[in-house]
Amino acid sequence: MKMKEYPVSKVYSLLEGGPVVMVTTSCGGRFNVMSMSWHTMIEFVPPLIGCVVSDANYTFNILKATKECVIAIPQARLAGKVVRVGKTSGRDIDKFTSIGLTAKPASAVKAPLIVECFANIECKVVDTTLIDKYNFFILKAVKAWIDPAQKKPRALHHHGHGVFIVDGKKIRIPFKSIEP
Amino acid sequence: MKMKEYPVSKVYSLLEGGPVVMVTTSCGGRFNVMSMSWHTMIEFVPPLIGCVVSDANYTFNILKATKECVIAIPQARLAGKVVRVGKTSGRDIDKFTSIGLTAKPASAVKAPLIVECFANIECKVVDTTLIDKYNFFILKAVKAWIDPAQKKPRALHHHGHGVFIVDGKKIRIPFKSIEP
Repeated sequence: MKMKEYPVSKVYSLLEGGPVVMVTTSCGGRFNVMSMSWHTMIEFVPPLIGCVVSDANYTFNILKATKECVIAIPQARLAGKVVRVGKTSGRDIDKFTSIGLTAKPASAVKAPLIVECFANIECKVVDTTLIDKYNFFILKAVKAWIDPAQKKPRALHHHGHGVFIVDGKKIRIPFKSIEP
Repeated sequence: MKMKEYPVSKVYSLLEGGPVVMVTTSCGGRFNVMSMSWHTMIEFVPPLIGCVVSDANYTFNILKATKECVIAIPQARLAGKVVRVGKTSGRDIDKFTSIGLTAKPASAVKAPLIVECFANIECKVVDTTLIDKYNFFILKAVKAWIDPAQKKPRALHHHGHGVFIVDGKKIRIPFKSIEP
């Protein structure tokens, strides 16, 4: 599977709609992955992303120490794996192997890309101000990739307790149509 | 239209899926409203929401001064109004009147609810740490309302430049189904 580079200046269009994502990290050569819904774009240039990683998560200390991660966006057909990723801990198992996700080396960070995801965003932690108070990390997107083979991917949106809404139809509201 | 109170402890289920929202404010008895996609849940208890309000927006100074707003969630059928709200400024027009949105008094804040929206969340600014650096406000949800007449509402997800994805089907992944 060949990934195509995607401009980091456009990652907002991947993230601002609020898809469920997976976050990978690497520590001592060992990969981990968690599921996440609490994220937002913060800035277009440079492309900054804010996200909450609970300090109860195995990922928290790794992200705080390594300051690197990958945000990977899964299609709806991966929902079962996304939930398993969210309900297990990297303290206990190697999630990539046991859940069946394929890691691929990233370019600018040691955290891996997830081959099955339609988009992968390599990120570095650039602001730690609110980590201690809210577990809130600010990341900078430094490199991004899409899988051209996944056409019109449908993302997932978590609504709590394993309930997800799948992307439906796309609509376009031309700005000129909204002139008074 | 009668709104039903919704527990603030569950506003995460309204917001974490990343819907486009509208943000209302009140200043000197005059209401304003903007559109927003850059928001995330920050904490369950108390229910905290982080959001970016650009300092180019008329809302910015009002929110910074009054420390109150309402986050209102529109259905897809309001997409045209959402875009008009996003492409006009309260400096120039009264958006409620000219775009056709109905304000209703809120309970705990002076900013109004939007009658046409299926959910309204009354919020107070509780953390200003990152406002100057990133225009990033942290809000506390203090009261929430849903419109029981709007059954199975379909929210909008912005992907940039007037392109939206509408909520599609709902799926549920039972946790027990994901045991290894």
